[in-house]
Amino acid sequence: MGSESKQQMVKSAAVLFRERGYSGTGFRDVIEHSGAPRGSIYHHFPGGKAELATETVRYAGSYIGAQIERLAQDGDPAAVLRAFVGWWRKLLEGSDFRAGCPVVAVAVEAHDDDAIVAATGEAFADWERALASTLRRSGATPARARRVATLCIAAIEGAVVMCRAQRSTQPLLDVGRELEQAIEAAQSG
Amino acid sequence: MGSESKQQMVKSAAVLFRERGYSGTGFRDVIEHSGAPRGSIYHHFPGGKAELATETVRYAGSYIGAQIERLAQDGDPAAVLRAFVGWWRKLLEGSDFRAGCPVVAVAVEAHDDDAIVAATGEAFADWERALASTLRRSGATPARARRVATLCIAAIEGAVVMCRAQRSTQPLLDVGRELEQAIEAAQSG
Repeated sequence: MGSESKQQMVKSAAVLFRERGYSGTGFRDVIEHSGAPRGSIYHHFPGGKAELATETVRYAGSYIGAQIERLAQDGDPAAVLRAFVGWWRKLLEGSDFRAGCPVVAVAVEAHDDDAIVAATGEAFADWERALASTLRRSGATPARARRVATLCIAAIEGAVVMCRAQRSTQPLLDVGRELEQAIEAAQSG
Repeated sequence: MGSESKQQMVKSAAVLFRERGYSGTGFRDVIEHSGAPRGSIYHHFPGGKAELATETVRYAGSYIGAQIERLAQDGDPAAVLRAFVGWWRKLLEGSDFRAGCPVVAVAVEAHDDDAIVAATGEAFADWERALASTLRRSGATPARARRVATLCIAAIEGAVVMCRAQRSTQPLLDVGRELEQAIEAAQSG
């Protein structure tokens, strides 16, 4: 069993967590979804489900962080925001509002395991840093760039939850529109 | 078994959901936490856990909505926001970052049950309406009042998740500060 099957299990866990949450996803579901042999999950994750969750949060955190970094290379902060909002919109609509953010799904449940909590905290911090750096480059003060980046991540994550609850992308679109104004205000000092 | 024991079970479920999530909370946990007799849960919730969750989301939604309404009677929107942020801060610090929002906890997991999804959507809509009405009264246009109210609810809910992940109230405080500016901008048109 190579690291490819491990990676496939992590990807499957991310897909399942974002739909069913952490407790709602069993090892059996991950095995079934990934097509991995039954014994492989304990081989790759001797620390059990908590270890799988930690790895999954790190994977999802890096994946989403890389999206933000990639968007940030070409555009100003408002363009990054619009693209990020569009990315979530596509996920929500494409899953008929079944899929949300796997990091949020784990963060709201798994407060008893220090490694999982640390991984969720680091994922959010990564995204904030990536967004804050584009804000600084476009003229915001460091303190304001950090706060507005936190606002953007928090509001988009909250809006994704609201969109699933209301089976509508309206909360995300409304939030995106207001965040553009916050970004504009931060840029002009 | 009167409706008092039913109400106690709903309150217990709210406390457990906000810490452990929907799937992570069993009927047994609710019985133990509420001190209700074992058979009473099926008596009060013949629809099973989904019915308990729907009732719990309605209860938590009304409870939080009532906090917003109460705050809105005395203050301007910025004061409502500050008090709401303070209320979440107290919950986070008082629970050592174990407790979040029970409505979010259910919303990220329970997309398969229409009644639960509808209850979570209505809870968010109630809070948005309460906040939007204070914004309109203080001079915001109806469209902007609605969008800024959505931004506030989404950002605070997202920040509560980030606070738990980072074991710090900093995200909530940063978000609160930026939301005050968004409210001020909406009031002045």
